[in-house]
Amino acid sequence: MTVAASVEHVQDIISRTPYLSWLGLKVLALGPDSIEVRATWREEWGASPTVGQTPGGILAAVIDFTADFALMGALGRAAPTIDLRVDYHRMTIKSDLIAKGKIIKLGKQVSVCEARLYDDKERLVASGRGSFFTAPPSS
Amino acid sequence: MTVAASVEHVQDIISRTPYLSWLGLKVLALGPDSIEVRATWREEWGASPTVGQTPGGILAAVIDFTADFALMGALGRAAPTIDLRVDYHRMTIKSDLIAKGKIIKLGKQVSVCEARLYDDKERLVASGRGSFFTAPPSS
Amino acid sequence: MTVAASVEHVQDIISRTPYLSWLGLKVLALGPDSIEVRATWREEWGASPTVGQTPGGILAAVIDFTADFALMGALGRAAPTIDLRVDYHRMTIKSDLIAKGKIIKLGKQVSVCEARLYDDKERLVASGRGSFFTAPPSS
Amino acid sequence: MTVAASVEHVQDIISRTPYLSWLGLKVLALGPDSIEVRATWREEWGASPTVGQTPGGILAAVIDFTADFALMGALGRAAPTIDLRVDYHRMTIKSDLIAKGKIIKLGKQVSVCEARLYDDKERLVASGRGSFFTAPPSS
Repeated sequence: MTVAASVEHVQDIISRTPYLSWLGLKVLALGPDSIEVRATWREEWGASPTVGQTPGGILAAVIDFTADFALMGALGRAAPTIDLRVDYHRMTIKSDLIAKGKIIKLGKQVSVCEARLYDDKERLVASGRGSFFTAPPSS
Repeated sequence: MTVAASVEHVQDIISRTPYLSWLGLKVLALGPDSIEVRATWREEWGASPTVGQTPGGILAAVIDFTADFALMGALGRAAPTIDLRVDYHRMTIKSDLIAKGKIIKLGKQVSVCEARLYDDKERLVASGRGSFFTAPPSS
Repeated sequence: MTVAASVEHVQDIISRTPYLSWLGLKVLALGPDSIEVRATWREEWGASPTVGQTPGGILAAVIDFTADFALMGALGRAAPTIDLRVDYHRMTIKSDLIAKGKIIKLGKQVSVCEARLYDDKERLVASGRGSFFTAPPSS
Repeated sequence: MTVAASVEHVQDIISRTPYLSWLGLKVLALGPDSIEVRATWREEWGASPTVGQTPGGILAAVIDFTADFALMGALGRAAPTIDLRVDYHRMTIKSDLIAKGKIIKLGKQVSVCEARLYDDKERLVASGRGSFFTAPPSS
């Protein structure tokens, strides 16, 4: 299978997008139906006054990005998120995140992809899946 | 029904929590099974290099907070998120968000709450629901 | 608002559909963005050898139907389910179910509807939401 | 890893449970964190008067069972479903279903498992994941 986009192309999209830059995303690998990225911990990721764990919203954001951009190698583009499900498995504190995305179903109009997030000790922190609207842009 | 927490108490939690402060959350109302908050738009909320719409991860974060803190009036505390579902309804660009959360089921061990997000023209932007672990903290 | 279908029309679809007939569905009311139905308990609804509670798959089926057919009053038709989320709130044993469905967002290509199920004592048993593919059928 | 239950034990639970018997479930394999089952098509699985495709509620029921019983090899028991997400990928008509379940996260209080359903031509029909309440039964 060929890969319809390059690591550099995805990294360039990130660098031009304020929120993706803020998440500190680095593309580690891109396959025909998968992607692997790192998200870089930052001070604003503190979900409570005392514990300081990474908030669910950040984990959801990284899962959304990673599941969506798993489409890059197949379609050469990401697609609008229809909906997202996120499961939270364990607390993570001041750790970068490694995120692995994979296509479950590449459909004509709707595609489904999943993502899993690991902390810097390779423990599963969160996982999820989303539906993406992959119908061709109307002319 | 009595309300187990005050607007001031929730606002104080926000002010001491880096991520919630970063989201610019203001509590507008708190009821026995509901909450209403405003999230304040900021430059880092740009989901694409060209359009600049608010990213799905931000909407997910506000839904997670709002659904979870709908428990405040009933329990006097929020609870760990087990999982979250978010549906994206329309794009929003450079708008504050009004979020309304409500308890669907207050359970002994697991509770379910929903949230709806509106833009500054009162259009529904996103909605969702989450499961929260509301078993009493073990002693 | 006008209602694009009648109770009789929906009941006729049920009567001609093996699985919907098997669920014992009776349409109680139909509005422009809502529907109310009853599902009739039957012996095959036994989810365990001992307790005999109604299985999650039956509750999911009734939620899927009710959320989808909440579109009837607006569109005059149901639509293919893209995905479904179901939350289980309490066990129900040998009870009929009352299901209330409502449109959350009527979209051009994707719509989102919710449903809540109650037992014969009006206790909330399960609830959920689904995404439905409401783009016009291609010609 | 040892497997905490046998194929025969799970098949015996199915045979004593009305709804699981009605789904025609046969256990094909059981591993320490996985299960594979077949569900047998029957006339009542007709989701529309004309096309006769297998309804979403049946697919949801098989996903719920398969994800839940993926816990069998690890725990020696299934667990109550907290919530379920199902994605529908393609229509299936009058086909048995092969279902493969797998544990994503075995947790102390909540576990998450996924399942994928294939038709008799090995095409992916539906997939999903659920949260299950795996805290030890209280004494």
